[in-house]
Amino acid sequence: MVLQIHHIKKPGRKVALYIAMSLDGYIAKPNDDLSFLSIVHKKGEDYGYADFINNIDTVIIGRKTYDWVTKEVGYFPHADKTAYIITRTQKPDEDKTHFYTGNLKDLVEKLKSREGQTIFVDGGAEIVNEMLKENLIDEFIISVIPILLGNGTSLFKNQRPVENLKLLETKTFDTGLVQLHYKVITFEKA
Amino acid sequence: MVLQIHHIKKPGRKVALYIAMSLDGYIAKPNDDLSFLSIVHKKGEDYGYADFINNIDTVIIGRKTYDWVTKEVGYFPHADKTAYIITRTQKPDEDKTHFYTGNLKDLVEKLKSREGQTIFVDGGAEIVNEMLKENLIDEFIISVIPILLGNGTSLFKNQRPVENLKLLETKTFDTGLVQLHYKVITFEKA
Repeated sequence: MVLQIHHIKKPGRKVALYIAMSLDGYIAKPNDDLSFLSIVHKKGEDYGYADFINNIDTVIIGRKTYDWVTKEVGYFPHADKTAYIITRTQKPDEDKTHFYTGNLKDLVEKLKSREGQTIFVDGGAEIVNEMLKENLIDEFIISVIPILLGNGTSLFKNQRPVENLKLLETKTFDTGLVQLHYKVITFEKA
Repeated sequence: MVLQIHHIKKPGRKVALYIAMSLDGYIAKPNDDLSFLSIVHKKGEDYGYADFINNIDTVIIGRKTYDWVTKEVGYFPHADKTAYIITRTQKPDEDKTHFYTGNLKDLVEKLKSREGQTIFVDGGAEIVNEMLKENLIDEFIISVIPILLGNGTSLFKNQRPVENLKLLETKTFDTGLVQLHYKVITFEKA
């Protein structure tokens, strides 16, 4: 089974994390405060986000993050994509938005066995770390914000396997944001 | 007193952290295992280390890291610089190597009030975090190694103040190492 996954994985669709973190590895200050992102806000600069979104057709997102973003934005911004909200509470589908209570690995396997574009992991940290534990993320596009937050939600938790990466690209912006793009080349389960 | 420090700080010598971490923010795997650094070893490439060392005349290093590096290398590699080993156990000086049991902030203030070159903070994480809590580090040169270690010693601990950074430079190497160089511009005590 494990070998099969590896086989499907390479030629198939990829799962990508596109996220911003502080230099000290936080994606939010305490109480989901994302105000630090404003230091890199610049008119007309989206740090490649629109291009990235144009190349995805599927979103995996944790329920808490889904609720948070839906509240902040006023609606779920990925309702036009096939979305899987990872939750423990069953709920009926809303058009292309599915509330998924099953196993993450099974979901990714199923999605990868189908044709399609990139699968976007949109957080939060809990879902990202569950996926990292199972080596379910193929690419990382991490925007490093020029700040030490000192406290908050860490993107990476302990107790994950080693994953060797290949640096694909670095982009440096005049706001001080550095975007690092990696793909996973090997992993070793702890 | 606080204002005075800020005043001394800007025109004076700077305190710089030069360190390597994995993308997930670890400086070592469990048991002080630094073997992951070998993935970026390349003959003739020192990632600017010799240049950096040529511009320092003082080293601040934790006692555990001092013991570790002295054992690994066979001798203390910064014995030619003025070095402060931060320790709880008093010991007589060994030439330019001082065993310092006092307060870190007092030490940095004292060093900054004197003329001299850059002061190098050589770790470990405990000393780095104590210094970050007091905003005693002016510049960060962080080499991001293309790996997720999943576990180990985190460079940045929780419970630190916010520090706003200015990106000074990014260097990308063909080994996949990305070197980020920042200076601290403002800080807010939590």
